[in-house]
Amino acid sequence: MAPQYAPSLWAALPLLAFLLETLLILLFTFCIQYEQWEVKESSFTDIYAELQDVSVMVFFGFGFLAAFLTRYSFSSLGFNLLVASFAVQWAVLMNGLLFSISNGKISVSMRSLTEAQMFAVSGLISMGAVLGKTNPIHLLLLALLEVTGFVANTWILRTYLKVPAVDSIMMLHIFGAFFGLMTSWALRREGLEPRHSKEKVHRKTGLFSMMGALFLWMFWPSFNSVLIDHTLHAKKLSVIGNTYLSLAASAVSAFVFSALTSPRGKMNVVHIQSSMLAGGVAMGVPMSASCTPWVAVTIGLLAGLLSTLGFRYFKPYLQVNFGCHDTCSILSVHGLPGILGWMAYMLIEVSHSDDLSKSLRFTLYLMCTLITTLGVSLGLGAITGVLLKWRGWRPPQDRKCFDDQAFWEFPHLAVHK
Amino acid sequence: MAPQYAPSLWAALPLLAFLLETLLILLFTFCIQYEQWEVKESSFTDIYAELQDVSVMVFFGFGFLAAFLTRYSFSSLGFNLLVASFAVQWAVLMNGLLFSISNGKISVSMRSLTEAQMFAVSGLISMGAVLGKTNPIHLLLLALLEVTGFVANTWILRTYLKVPAVDSIMMLHIFGAFFGLMTSWALRREGLEPRHSKEKVHRKTGLFSMMGALFLWMFWPSFNSVLIDHTLHAKKLSVIGNTYLSLAASAVSAFVFSALTSPRGKMNVVHIQSSMLAGGVAMGVPMSASCTPWVAVTIGLLAGLLSTLGFRYFKPYLQVNFGCHDTCSILSVHGLPGILGWMAYMLIEVSHSDDLSKSLRFTLYLMCTLITTLGVSLGLGAITGVLLKWRGWRPPQDRKCFDDQAFWEFPHLAVHK
Amino acid sequence: MAPQYAPSLWAALPLLAFLLETLLILLFTFCIQYEQWEVKESSFTDIYAELQDVSVMVFFGFGFLAAFLTRYSFSSLGFNLLVASFAVQWAVLMNGLLFSISNGKISVSMRSLTEAQMFAVSGLISMGAVLGKTNPIHLLLLALLEVTGFVANTWILRTYLKVPAVDSIMMLHIFGAFFGLMTSWALRREGLEPRHSKEKVHRKTGLFSMMGALFLWMFWPSFNSVLIDHTLHAKKLSVIGNTYLSLAASAVSAFVFSALTSPRGKMNVVHIQSSMLAGGVAMGVPMSASCTPWVAVTIGLLAGLLSTLGFRYFKPYLQVNFGCHDTCSILSVHGLPGILGWMAYMLIEVSHSDDLSKSLRFTLYLMCTLITTLGVSLGLGAITGVLLKWRGWRPPQDRKCFDDQAFWEFPHLAVHK
Repeated sequence: MAPQYAPSLWAALPLLAFLLETLLILLFTFCIQYEQWEVKESSFTDIYAELQDVSVMVFFGFGFLAAFLTRYSFSSLGFNLLVASFAVQWAVLMNGLLFSISNGKISVSMRSLTEAQMFAVSGLISMGAVLGKTNPIHLLLLALLEVTGFVANTWILRTYLKVPAVDSIMMLHIFGAFFGLMTSWALRREGLEPRHSKEKVHRKTGLFSMMGALFLWMFWPSFNSVLIDHTLHAKKLSVIGNTYLSLAASAVSAFVFSALTSPRGKMNVVHIQSSMLAGGVAMGVPMSASCTPWVAVTIGLLAGLLSTLGFRYFKPYLQVNFGCHDTCSILSVHGLPGILGWMAYMLIEVSHSDDLSKSLRFTLYLMCTLITTLGVSLGLGAITGVLLKWRGWRPPQDRKCFDDQAFWEFPHLAVHK
Repeated sequence: MAPQYAPSLWAALPLLAFLLETLLILLFTFCIQYEQWEVKESSFTDIYAELQDVSVMVFFGFGFLAAFLTRYSFSSLGFNLLVASFAVQWAVLMNGLLFSISNGKISVSMRSLTEAQMFAVSGLISMGAVLGKTNPIHLLLLALLEVTGFVANTWILRTYLKVPAVDSIMMLHIFGAFFGLMTSWALRREGLEPRHSKEKVHRKTGLFSMMGALFLWMFWPSFNSVLIDHTLHAKKLSVIGNTYLSLAASAVSAFVFSALTSPRGKMNVVHIQSSMLAGGVAMGVPMSASCTPWVAVTIGLLAGLLSTLGFRYFKPYLQVNFGCHDTCSILSVHGLPGILGWMAYMLIEVSHSDDLSKSLRFTLYLMCTLITTLGVSLGLGAITGVLLKWRGWRPPQDRKCFDDQAFWEFPHLAVHK
Repeated sequence: MAPQYAPSLWAALPLLAFLLETLLILLFTFCIQYEQWEVKESSFTDIYAELQDVSVMVFFGFGFLAAFLTRYSFSSLGFNLLVASFAVQWAVLMNGLLFSISNGKISVSMRSLTEAQMFAVSGLISMGAVLGKTNPIHLLLLALLEVTGFVANTWILRTYLKVPAVDSIMMLHIFGAFFGLMTSWALRREGLEPRHSKEKVHRKTGLFSMMGALFLWMFWPSFNSVLIDHTLHAKKLSVIGNTYLSLAASAVSAFVFSALTSPRGKMNVVHIQSSMLAGGVAMGVPMSASCTPWVAVTIGLLAGLLSTLGFRYFKPYLQVNFGCHDTCSILSVHGLPGILGWMAYMLIEVSHSDDLSKSLRFTLYLMCTLITTLGVSLGLGAITGVLLKWRGWRPPQDRKCFDDQAFWEFPHLAVHK
């Protein structure tokens, strides 16, 4: 009854992408210009070097991170590139419209490109939950809705709660993770067996995704520190140092707990590559707090622990009990470590303060930040999921999930070389 | 009749490479010294960081870009390294001899190393057309002749047409592509079937070449902007921003038109990885023009379109009708987008100008630049092709084309793992 | 009699790693703080960009360099990450304790993190000799002892021989290589056949290790120049330029001599990827000498020659005659080129000097530096080897050497996909 081949996207995908890109060109024509650059020299270079680091993370790191799926690595990598290219252009517009428009014109600068890449990351995180069970049309729509929602969320946080810009952007891990989980839950397929036969790691694709993970891991200090002004050297040093130490600790922690929770003490490569990043996530959220090296190492250790346990126990639990399948386990990599970072932020600030009422006010403020972010992300994630459920978007059949064959021309790859 | 094994390069390759390297050492002894550095500090670092970006593109990006050939990835990568190492040393000398010699001494600086790497790129582009059908001796000779020719071409452009240094170097895409095509045409083999059985992409080698392509794509803004002086911040920002946006658009465009020109709407990984770079090429040529963001996005979109169509239709056409086989499709990746960029340069300048006679003069000037470059590249390419046709260079037999076995020690790889 | 499976590390590895990390947190709590940053702006950024380059070398470059072993690439990559994460944290402490403690507090800065990474490299080099025949417990202990020993060696050199800090750190190649060789000799296994059936390179893992090697090769100029103060521009330019040229020459040299020493003129991918790095090692040791471009190219050429010959002839000789098995051939990649660099240092300084007694004093001083380094490394290497010989560390059986199966969860990889 079901067709033998995955539904063709021949007309739909090119048409949608071309229309979107044309729309972007039109909007760019009317309201984008380059900033007239007048700040002093060295600051320019600083920003460019770190923009490049973030660029490597967005297009290379996230692309290869998800390439572990044995028959889906081209799609993971390619769709990440397609979606990120769109999301960055879209985020330049959205971010500019809400925060930096003057005389009807949005100024593009190194900083606005960097921020746009970070907004795009929130979309790429959400994508990780539904990867393999969707087609590129779903992913494009999801990313555009998600980026719009996340920019709106930072606007709410900055306008009503007076959250500093940097702190509001750092909620991207929590926002992206819960948005993606909700969408994945709304898109759940009854027919998909709990463990899809193609949803596994292969020896060689594992090395590719380890490569992507390593580039994310190495450049994460830039990701957390790039939005700090270059005149604040001590702050910048401490964020870079803390992220570095936290990442080192979470890598160790991923090895420790992956081996400990395995019956024969063997490590799992997908746990390691994902959980080693948890330290960076968990240090990103409280980056405005002043934090000593040992605290950073401790946060990294706990983040790695939480993430590995999430991978081993929480991911299957969610799937079996709620039907919420999370391909790249974004809950363990971004969601839980993000909330850990949020708690660390609260604890650090409260422990530094002598004034009880101030501590209470700060706790309340952080609570509101988290609840707003969770509310907006869960709500919009559910709406996005419902929108994407329409059969007209031509989702791949259950049998064709996690398979490059549905989207890529590989006539000679039908048989394993 | 034909020998069973590819001809051994035992004596020839080491001897040639050793003699060339010794010659380089001798020339270096007499005429190379380091620049006595006196400019101010920050500019030094700026240049070093961007030199590194270009370095990654030259040695890593171009090396892995051509690694998609299923049985030829070691050769693609290794010969790229060998040829690039030579070509950079040679270009330091050639570039110095023509442009920066004083008192019989050539000064080496960060900038001259960067320019030497860009000259080497023109040789690596040409190499892409003949890859797989040649041996490393051919490639070395081709690269040295090509770099010499390209330096001579920039000298002609700068001396007789008063082309600015930066603009003359940016002709490297057009020069490299047409030089390589001509050489490939001169070296055409009647016996090679139109579609060689080993000339195909494999699932894993496709991921490697996607990796190389991504590094080229991510660092292309540095490639286009590195030669701009660091005091011109506004110019540098606009070139970086334009290249970034143009690349994003050409990535989208590559997906759109690769899917649209496929019968079942499937994408082709070799098209994507190559055509996504077209936006960078097309923004490189008109980098001296002042260009707004929407123009950059439009150029990127058109470059991706042109490049994908070139891949799908023009490459087989050239091969069937002219016997000109273009392994890495350099015409689609560098040649056509380069000419598109040249046309964009003309249109932008003409549209900005109110003065008709000035516009006409500028058009004439650009025409001369293009015609000179095409003339020199096609002429020298043909001569190089004829020189390399000599059987004494021991070309691999038709059956041994596109095969690592001819050049690499893999006793245990005779059978597939 | 022997068990069928490799001994489980279930309790031992997590326990050891967790205890070590907890110990580090405790020590960090009491004696680590961030430097109060007061130097001027641009210098901060310079250091960060180069710290990142070294970071890529340590975690990515060394990790993938050793990934060529066909069934051991996950272990090579993963254990490199685990060991490097520990070694860097440990080196921050050790280096701080001996050189930058004040009021009982160690200040962490960009520079101290960079130095810590370089100390960690000496441990990663030693690891290369015993890789595949050990488990992660061995590797962790080896790295901690090696880093401690190397920090002690730099302390001896700096205190008793007045060696400048930079020069003492650059002995890391010689120290690491001989330490590792000695440990590998002490751990020799009678039962291991000279050529283990799993100790070979595979087509795809070869590409991965080529990738790691390329990143090391491209960023080596940063490795050699990062410790030079940023106000010394001419010095920094010459070290970067010399390393760049030396690396280019040693890449050429690796191709030449790999082909020349092969019966049919074929190149060997493991030789190329390792020997192309020899030029960087050999230019690192004499980086304090003032060295013209042609000398750098000559040193690179000789380093590539020495390294390729070491690979082809010296590695099997050592193994057959002394039972000293050197998995990654660290003697050829770091040991011999390091000593070549040391000799070049002596020759350059002597040839520049007119004063015979000064030359003699300098030669004597360099002799003492080398002898001290060799003595400490060989002595500590032997002690480490004896400590690691204890059966309680649960070494893998001979049959399980060079096999990921012993350490990684790959149920579905038991058969080749």
